[in-house]
Order: sequence, then C-alpha cells, then structure tokens
Amino acid sequence: MKLVLIGFGTVGQGFTEILRDRLDELRTRYGFRPLLVGVATRSRGTLLHPDGLDFDALLTASAGGSLTAYPDTPGLLRDLPALELIARSDADVLLEASWTDLQSAQPATDYCRAAFDAGMHVILANKGPVALHYADLHARARSAGRHLRFEGTVMAGTPALALAQEALAGCRIDFVRGILNGTTNYMLTQMAEGQPYADALATAQRLGYAEADPTADVGGWDAAAKAMILAAALFDQQLTLDQLDVTGITDLTITQINAAAAAGERYKLIAEITPSGARIAPLRLPLTDPLAQVSGATNAITYQTDLLGPVTLIGAGAGRLETGYALLGDLLAIHRQIPQ
Amino acid sequence: MKLVLIGFGTVGQGFTEILRDRLDELRTRYGFRPLLVGVATRSRGTLLHPDGLDFDALLTASAGGSLTAYPDTPGLLRDLPALELIARSDADVLLEASWTDLQSAQPATDYCRAAFDAGMHVILANKGPVALHYADLHARARSAGRHLRFEGTVMAGTPALALAQEALAGCRIDFVRGILNGTTNYMLTQMAEGQPYADALATAQRLGYAEADPTADVGGWDAAAKAMILAAALFDQQLTLDQLDVTGITDLTITQINAAAAAGERYKLIAEITPSGARIAPLRLPLTDPLAQVSGATNAITYQTDLLGPVTLIGAGAGRLETGYALLGDLLAIHRQIPQ
Repeated sequence: MKLVLIGFGTVGQGFTEILRDRLDELRTRYGFRPLLVGVATRSRGTLLHPDGLDFDALLTASAGGSLTAYPDTPGLLRDLPALELIARSDADVLLEASWTDLQSAQPATDYCRAAFDAGMHVILANKGPVALHYADLHARARSAGRHLRFEGTVMAGTPALALAQEALAGCRIDFVRGILNGTTNYMLTQMAEGQPYADALATAQRLGYAEADPTADVGGWDAAAKAMILAAALFDQQLTLDQLDVTGITDLTITQINAAAAAGERYKLIAEITPSGARIAPLRLPLTDPLAQVSGATNAITYQTDLLGPVTLIGAGAGRLETGYALLGDLLAIHRQIPQ
Repeated sequence: MKLVLIGFGTVGQGFTEILRDRLDELRTRYGFRPLLVGVATRSRGTLLHPDGLDFDALLTASAGGSLTAYPDTPGLLRDLPALELIARSDADVLLEASWTDLQSAQPATDYCRAAFDAGMHVILANKGPVALHYADLHARARSAGRHLRFEGTVMAGTPALALAQEALAGCRIDFVRGILNGTTNYMLTQMAEGQPYADALATAQRLGYAEADPTADVGGWDAAAKAMILAAALFDQQLTLDQLDVTGITDLTITQINAAAAAGERYKLIAEITPSGARIAPLRLPLTDPLAQVSGATNAITYQTDLLGPVTLIGAGAGRLETGYALLGDLLAIHRQIPQ
C-alpha cells in the first residue's frame, strides 16, 4: 500500500517511527506492506520516490530541521508542490497530518479533494478539513468508492470513532459527552488541587501541553472542532463554528472550583453533542460520573446509547506515538476492508 | 440470514425483542434481514420453521412458560432434539445463549461443533464453551472458514472484545485488568458505604443481581470464566480453571474496606490477564485508577497497550437488552464482513 504523508511534525514523525519499528510485525500479522512514497511539508521541503522513502533517513533529516538533508537516491524527486506530488505519487492513501487551521482548513482540504480525484483513500489527523468540510469530503469519498477516515482527530489514536461507528453498530447513540481537550483537563486537575489559573497554565506550557498562545485550548476551540467532527460523523450535521455555544475555562475561578469540590462535584470542560447541535462549557459533574474522575491530560468520551446505556472510553488524547498510531489504525482498517 | 437460537432465557428474549423492534432499521441501515428459523430450549420445547418464527408469538409463548404455546402453523416442527434441529435448520448462524456450565460446557459445546460441521457461523453469549474449549472451537471455525464470535460473554454487549480485537488493531496489548462481575462490584460499592457483607449480598439478591446460590459471583468464578475467555482470545492461552489463582470477596471485611478508604483507596474484584496467566482477587486500587471509580453493577476493563498506554472501557456488564444486543452486534459484524 503506497502512502503519501502531508506534514512531518510530531504526528508524522510518530507514525514514521511506528512503521519503522514494526514493519515485520505488520507484515506477519496482517499481511500489511506499507510503502511511504511521498512526504510533503509546507516549509521544510517535499520528497517523492516511487520505490519508497527510507524511514530512518527521513527521521534523521527531519531531526536536522529540513527534508533537504534526506540523501540523494536515483529516482528521488525533491520539492514538488504538494498538489503535484499527490497527483504524481500513484499512491493508494493520502495521510493528512499537517497543522489544524480552523479558519479555512486549507490547503489541507484541497489536498484531500485532489487525493479523492486521484482515486486515493484519505486519512486525517488534521481536524480542519473534517470539522469544516465533512459533508463535502464524505460525498467525494462515497462517489469515489474510497475511505475517509479520521480517528486521529478525536482523542488521538484512542479509538473513539471506531467504537462509535463500528463496535457499537446496531445501537443508537442518543448523545455524546466528552473531555476532548487534554490541556484544559490538566489545568482543571491542577486547579482542583489549589493552583490558580495562571500557575496551572504556566505549568501546562512548561510541560508542552499548552502552546505559547493557549487560546485554542483554554478558549474551548480545540474541543469545539472535535465536537463538530463528532456531530458530522455520528449525527450527519455539518455545523459551523458560529453555530456552537463555546465557553472555555478562562473565566473559571478557584472559588468556583472549590465550591464544586465542597458539593462533591468537579468542573470539567465538557463537549456535548446531540443530533441537534453541540456546545462546549465547563460543567460541574457529580463524582459518580465517570468523566468527573478523568484527571490530567487524559481524554474521555461517553456515548449514551439506547440498548447499552452509557458506554465510556478513557484514554490518551494527544502524543507523538498516540496520534501516530491513529494513522496506522486507520490504514489497517482500510487494509482489512472494514466497511465504511 | 437464517438464525438458530439455543436458549430462550433473558438473553434470548432480549435479543428477540431487539430484532422485533428494529427490523426495519436493520434493513434500511445495514441491509440486514435476519430470519429466526429455530429456537431450542432444554426443558421448554423447541421450534423449527424454515420460513421463520414470529417474534411476538415466541415472546408471548415464552412468557407463558413454554414454547408449546407457540401457535401451530404449516411447516412448523416441534420438539426436535437440539442437535437434530441444528442439522435440519439450514441456518447460517447458531446463537448459543443457554446457561453457562463451567464444569463441562455441555451440551453447548457439542451444539457449536455441530454448527461448524454444518457450515454455520457461531455466536455465543454462553461463557462455558469459550472458556473451556476456545482453542478447539477456534480451530474448527478457521477450518470451516466461519466466524466464532462471543462479545456477549464479557461485559454483555459493551464491546470489550471488539475494542481489543478490532479497534485496537496494530497495538500490542501487554496486559488486561477488569471489573468483570457486576454483582460483586455492586456489593463492594454497598460495603464501601457501610453495609456489612451479608446485607450487601441480601440487597444484591433482592435486586436480582445475585442468585440464591451466589457462589459463582462472590467466589470469583464468573470473573474467572471471563478471564479465561480474554486469555484465550487476546493471548492465545487455553487456561483451565485450576490454573487460575481465584480469590473471591467472601472473606473481605468492612474493616479492610474502611482501611482502604482511609488510605484513599478502594477494593475492587479485579481480573488480571497477562500473556502468561490470569488471576482474580480483591485489590486495593488508588482513586486515580479509572477502575477504582466504577461503582454499582457496572463493568470496566483496561487494556494496557504499547502505543496508547491504558485504554479503559466502562459500561453495562449484564442485562436483558444489554446482552441481547451482544448477539446483534456479532451478527452485524458477520453481515458486514468484519474480518476475524
């Protein structure tokens, strides 16, 4: 199976490491033989080789800061524009793992469209195209008879979407509630232990959970993008960001958190998705709610179903290998012909 | 898809209700058209009709205590022995939902073998044949090119096996820990609130969680059977009951439970399954462990994976519709050609 990877940040690197380390196991256990023929970054070069790129050489070059350090080999094409690289790749699958842009979701969305036009399957870890253009991409996937998979956009590789869409087949999901942003959950956990907001944010930034500009996390926008993805994938709703009621944690005080604790409750930044919309807000949950107990940067999601009642999945929501695995899991689903 | 159902207790009835209530939805959404051609009970009669049995009439007859009250229709065969019913059914799938017998797992295991011999897929909610004879049944399924599915044997329809075997494909599971018996978890929850063991047991019996002879639950044997199933399905180990280290909750005192609470911990009856064995024991878990927080009759399982770290699933572990759904989920996996 020939692959083109867009983006070579932590997710792309994690994915490449996983492939490098378990190529034999994937072949033995699943008969799966991936060949990474192309990698495209926005500012650090692109590489295309019909016989496949070398995982170690890619990781070494990238660690040096640019794909230009990748060694020359006969047949290697460098610095093709990404769209041209996709068109010339003859690949089976496009993996979109570049940074999420929730304003335009471009150029990633165009890459996905080009991939479907070229008869490729599309797998995303990038939230933008799914959050903003799911309906369009889904329609293109269907008419091309190709997969559109995006496990890595929600809870990293923790199989939240596979659980809802495959393992719970035959159940009706009535609504969804989740802790979908690890940074804010880490901060709320720290605040529940007495750290003021500013200190909790500083700690999260020092640990690499929060970025220098933490707005996407603390403002609730990252959770909102994931809620839009779940609304689209599970309830066939294409929401826009301004249709969502989004409240972050920036106004939450230690006083409020202490008051919740005194009442035997805990504040969590909860994404709620129903068949008629979605909202993000800090909510006080009783300790009997499994989501109330999820601490640190961990994520969790509860599917309220008609036949099983609540089904809760708790797991990693970020990380190099954790999100890199999401791409592998989706690839294996295509390879194993899991129907969509 | 023609079905034969063995056992018409709560699971079989729940399954039949689900089929009756969502036949249209299953047809529209999945193109799935089940036809229940045979039902066999041990002491309440058997029915076989090549054109299918009527769900409502079955449920009505069963509510009256016996399938003999099922109305006569042309072509209906009554009271065939189960093995003959299976052989003459021309069905595609055998659903084994009779009571679990952990001594011999018979006659259920023979029914499964007969089904494979007749080219049928086999789905079990009955734990016995999987716990005791997985290796044999798995080999027969493979050589017949048929499915062997048993989601309902662990955590009812909560898709614990689908999560491990399908949604986590490509991850290595290093070990498993679970709360796999709802009755004892309910009792431990009551005891943590101050009820002595005997009272907690009486309450569980009054609510229908525990049987008159509660040994299978409180002795840890039900959890042990599920651990054997997980050991077989995930780690290819065919354990026998006497290879397991099984400690139930009968010797656990309120004093011990209070001591755990004072140390910020909670006793849970934990099944631990590793590639080299399994054990059942009441363990003190810190409150940061998601399993420590699972209260009442709910079940939970944590898969420790190499790429995602711990992945925890929390959901129902028993119930008429909850376990009935397990059979439907497995049927849909066969219908959708999810590979095994």
